[in-house]
Amino acid sequence: MQYIHETRMKVRDYECDIQGIVNNANYQHYLEHARHEFLRSRGLSFTQMHREGIDPVVAAITMRFKTPLKGMDEFLVKTAVTHEGIRYIFHQDIYRASDMKLSVQAQVDIVCLTDGKLTDSHILDPLI
Amino acid sequence: MQYIHETRMKVRDYECDIQGIVNNANYQHYLEHARHEFLRSRGLSFTQMHREGIDPVVAAITMRFKTPLKGMDEFLVKTAVTHEGIRYIFHQDIYRASDMKLSVQAQVDIVCLTDGKLTDSHILDPLI
Amino acid sequence: MQYIHETRMKVRDYECDIQGIVNNANYQHYLEHARHEFLRSRGLSFTQMHREGIDPVVAAITMRFKTPLKGMDEFLVKTAVTHEGIRYIFHQDIYRASDMKLSVQAQVDIVCLTDGKLTDSHILDPLI
Amino acid sequence: MQYIHETRMKVRDYECDIQGIVNNANYQHYLEHARHEFLRSRGLSFTQMHREGIDPVVAAITMRFKTPLKGMDEFLVKTAVTHEGIRYIFHQDIYRASDMKLSVQAQVDIVCLTDGKLTDSHILDPLI
Repeated sequence: MQYIHETRMKVRDYECDIQGIVNNANYQHYLEHARHEFLRSRGLSFTQMHREGIDPVVAAITMRFKTPLKGMDEFLVKTAVTHEGIRYIFHQDIYRASDMKLSVQAQVDIVCLTDGKLTDSHILDPLI
Repeated sequence: MQYIHETRMKVRDYECDIQGIVNNANYQHYLEHARHEFLRSRGLSFTQMHREGIDPVVAAITMRFKTPLKGMDEFLVKTAVTHEGIRYIFHQDIYRASDMKLSVQAQVDIVCLTDGKLTDSHILDPLI
Repeated sequence: MQYIHETRMKVRDYECDIQGIVNNANYQHYLEHARHEFLRSRGLSFTQMHREGIDPVVAAITMRFKTPLKGMDEFLVKTAVTHEGIRYIFHQDIYRASDMKLSVQAQVDIVCLTDGKLTDSHILDPLI
Repeated sequence: MQYIHETRMKVRDYECDIQGIVNNANYQHYLEHARHEFLRSRGLSFTQMHREGIDPVVAAITMRFKTPLKGMDEFLVKTAVTHEGIRYIFHQDIYRASDMKLSVQAQVDIVCLTDGKLTDSHILDPLI
């Protein structure tokens, strides 16, 4: 498994909670933003896919929290993708930029819906 | 000026920042939610208004921060509405429930757009 | 496995994204808020635990997204807890109140840190 | 009045609501992040100020919403500061990067607290 996309971001202070570290739900936001940047970098558009009748949706997500990020920390979201059955599996890891320490390890399962029904689509193959 | 609607809410811990108090932007969320509850209580629906070609939008907001709320604090959002020119002015004040101390004092100016253009609509008159 | 706590909440419109459904990261917020309500209902306080030198933290989370919630939907977060090894496992499921349809199925692994190190604590046993 | 600081940012899709435009409360987040970048660029630190017993807090904010930003739009937050009485007034304007159209015009009043009481501090003078 090899990362094929990377997005650099920076923690904003309002994303931190009372403990001074990023609130866990915000990592999910970071992962989503990184996927959208990835899709865009490959010329894929949700609007266009929707027009073709296919909607990719998140079916499941697993996140392991390793090292918490703090306000103004810069970090990298690195992404790899595999296709298993009807699922596209996004392997997304977040690294703190200052020392490349692993912060969050995630797996995001995406499935495609055609008219709301699960479908065996290859529409995301350009990502692989 | 008299309050004509009231919504009771509770601070969720993730809405607080590193200082242990509600992040200022979240008060804007509270105000919006209270307005939507208000509209709904009067039978007004954004979807329906949109179908009639009229979209109410926030043109401006002013907030004065008095007493910060903390995690799990309960609070009330009290609302009054006036109509001045083409603007509906929502006067929304947030009170901490435990002692009714004023937390935030806000004025939200709403204007109506028809096909994206300012219009002298009375669609929100049921609120007054 | 049996639910031993339940929190009722309501989707706020600002929690929905462009598709008109709750953005996935917000379900993580809902789960966190429900856990905090649960702890509080059992007399457990983060501040107090921290003073005793023990900090419970989320080590991992898995969420399966079943039925999306929409603006103003009411829902229940139901929680069960088990203790396996040094982990407390929170089984948290979100149900749409109108028809009790399963919206999100989650497992949240909590571990306890003493001075930043993993510890075999029983501080959350009052939850079981 | 002249801008003396500028931060470039990009809208993340999850910051948009059901209308496909940035939810108004997120502009407040953008403004806060830009102020923190500004302080940091001038060597000012909240932690250090807090140690010296002085806490700058937002007393009031006014925002005028001109042109809505959409998902992935890049934008600039430009900031000027004046000192009037005991208030520091941050004039912060958000411009869409693609055409430099004004998106949001804001005024943020900051006051300094010493031990929770209003104080005539000059701690933010390095910003002017």
